[in-house]
Amino acid sequence: MDIQSTFEALDKKFTSFGGLEQGGITRLLYSPEWNDAVRELESTFKEEGLEVSFDDVGNLSGRLVGSKYSDETILTGSHIDTVVEGGHLDGQFGILSALIAVKYLKEKYGQPLRTLEVLSLAEEEGSRFPYTFWGSKNFFNLAKKADVETIEDADGIKFEDAMHESGFDYRQNDNVRDDIKAFVEVHIEQGKVLETEHKTIGVVNGIVGQKRYTVNLKGEANHAGTTPMSLRRDTVVAYSEIVTDLIKRAREIGEPLVLTFGHVTPVPNTVNVVPGEITFSVDCRHIDQQALNDFSKEIEEKIKSVAEANDMTYDINLWMDEAPTLMDEKIINIVEQAAKKNVGDAYKVMPSGAGHDSQIFADFVPTAMLFVPSIAGISHNTNEETEVKDLVKGIEVLKDVLYELAYKE
Amino acid sequence: MDIQSTFEALDKKFTSFGGLEQGGITRLLYSPEWNDAVRELESTFKEEGLEVSFDDVGNLSGRLVGSKYSDETILTGSHIDTVVEGGHLDGQFGILSALIAVKYLKEKYGQPLRTLEVLSLAEEEGSRFPYTFWGSKNFFNLAKKADVETIEDADGIKFEDAMHESGFDYRQNDNVRDDIKAFVEVHIEQGKVLETEHKTIGVVNGIVGQKRYTVNLKGEANHAGTTPMSLRRDTVVAYSEIVTDLIKRAREIGEPLVLTFGHVTPVPNTVNVVPGEITFSVDCRHIDQQALNDFSKEIEEKIKSVAEANDMTYDINLWMDEAPTLMDEKIINIVEQAAKKNVGDAYKVMPSGAGHDSQIFADFVPTAMLFVPSIAGISHNTNEETEVKDLVKGIEVLKDVLYELAYKE
Repeated sequence: MDIQSTFEALDKKFTSFGGLEQGGITRLLYSPEWNDAVRELESTFKEEGLEVSFDDVGNLSGRLVGSKYSDETILTGSHIDTVVEGGHLDGQFGILSALIAVKYLKEKYGQPLRTLEVLSLAEEEGSRFPYTFWGSKNFFNLAKKADVETIEDADGIKFEDAMHESGFDYRQNDNVRDDIKAFVEVHIEQGKVLETEHKTIGVVNGIVGQKRYTVNLKGEANHAGTTPMSLRRDTVVAYSEIVTDLIKRAREIGEPLVLTFGHVTPVPNTVNVVPGEITFSVDCRHIDQQALNDFSKEIEEKIKSVAEANDMTYDINLWMDEAPTLMDEKIINIVEQAAKKNVGDAYKVMPSGAGHDSQIFADFVPTAMLFVPSIAGISHNTNEETEVKDLVKGIEVLKDVLYELAYKE
Repeated sequence: MDIQSTFEALDKKFTSFGGLEQGGITRLLYSPEWNDAVRELESTFKEEGLEVSFDDVGNLSGRLVGSKYSDETILTGSHIDTVVEGGHLDGQFGILSALIAVKYLKEKYGQPLRTLEVLSLAEEEGSRFPYTFWGSKNFFNLAKKADVETIEDADGIKFEDAMHESGFDYRQNDNVRDDIKAFVEVHIEQGKVLETEHKTIGVVNGIVGQKRYTVNLKGEANHAGTTPMSLRRDTVVAYSEIVTDLIKRAREIGEPLVLTFGHVTPVPNTVNVVPGEITFSVDCRHIDQQALNDFSKEIEEKIKSVAEANDMTYDINLWMDEAPTLMDEKIINIVEQAAKKNVGDAYKVMPSGAGHDSQIFADFVPTAMLFVPSIAGISHNTNEETEVKDLVKGIEVLKDVLYELAYKE
């Protein structure tokens, strides 16, 4: 079979579910477009001779049962939902590459020793309802009815009404599968590291931990004309010192530490008033928990010392504190060998700076991910794209990984 | 006469026009409260034996005609309007101190050689309609019908309808008075320089010039997790460097230069996106035109160099460029001598960082101002206050200045 033409046909078909005129997809959980996509995927799995099953919430599996170790499952896939005006690759490419890899292996090598299972996860993005990882959290019985029973979408439609309308329901039992021996997810990078370094494959060794703060400083609002510099307690000046010093420090510490001050609002935010108050965000990520902890301590110390030096009060609110997730070393190694075979040294072992379903799986089963490059790093945007030759390489690497995991003793 | 009790009675009476429960005044141009205040002021001037006249727009004069040089007028006063929820001293104190000083001089010394005129200017704040200095600009025939004939207040009431309702109209002729030999305005400082330096009187030597910019930088929006520090063009980082460097430089240059970054809005202003764009304000003031020009050049150079170093585009829009206004040296000197006589060395020669009616007068007639302290620098606020002993000192200094200007050959 020709991987590229197979991918292009499948991608065209599935991009039509929620497909937008300008390209890209809007396909939100339990929407008509989502429903059409999962029902079509069910048919496609059947056409490929896979055993198909939905779980209660709408995660869809297509299984190629193993000949010798049928109760040992090698799982691969990603999420079927998209963000609003998202691209055609985020999530969808992980499902299609899984399907194509399994189809290829089946055609070339026949039945595997272990069961191969292609997985379409119902939801990851949190774009319709304020809840993320609905698919993978249900897979491991982590999502609870209480988490979603009161939430609504932007049109006031209740989560459970949308779910019932789609023909799905809450999880009806607490059983968690114990047959999964590995999970491998293919995803676009959504960054531009691979492109910049001219690499074709990212071998993901973990998903970064992150801490997010909301910080408030209170100084004194004053007239911008009548208040000499020496009598000011200007929170924008304190803020700028904090940003400048901490960014400098983050650069010194170096990759993969990232630090972002994405949100800032001074009060009153007016041209002719010395801003007496400011609220800003800090987003800090690292793959190493200790390094993340150490730097977050520096962040807090810097904020305190600048506030105190400027006679300001401060409030530092750490509202997100997610630990890094490490991928399984054995499977990382298999992915790396497969990458090397397919692209030589054009691969990079790297952390993922964004969250993925794999971070849920990694807590329960041996997990790995592989990335293909994103053109200009663009994602969550209808212009999201990857060179088709790179997509094909991603599928080829996955196929070799699955062969190693499912066909070898 | 007792200056303090006279002031307290007058202040109580006039604060009742637009007076608020929590203290302070809302008295907007041509409102019923404003109308009541100017009509009561007219009666009060008459009771004090002053010749009273309104001009076309509602500026009110009370004249004590000179015995020898009746065609030479020494003018003193300020504006009768307030901001919304303003204090009881901003503007009003300038009128009342003028009235009390003239009353005192008349009672003690009788008719002056030159004419003394107490002036209530119709409007300065621009708080009801989007137009400032309506009173003083009409005084010198600077305001034009075309400036205001289409403007409305927040309730949709047209400027000219409100004016006509109050019994006033546009200026009916182009004659500008040539009898004014001096204008002296007493005002609260609206800053906290005098309080901080334990001074009772500010001898104002000028009103600062100011330049205001709106600056836009464009870098690149990126995912806060997947974009390494080295691949970012983060506009908040560039902004913080600009603020930090220019504030440091402004402090080095020293008083009376002030520099304020009051407004900032990054785009998209979200915790987990590297901000690819930012818009911010720069407000820079100095009493010396050359110093202001020099520093504004530094501002522009810094923005350009930081933008270029960070591979960003920039737009620097200078939308306000007001020249400094210098007070008249001879009158400054008279004010300084009177301050010295009344408070010893507890006075300070200083610029005004805020705008005042005096800046309009200074272009046409010899002008000076004197300040009394503002408690905690608070103004444009119902909590605006000055120690009554300081208010009395202000009136006493004004009286001595007027004596020098109107009673001496």
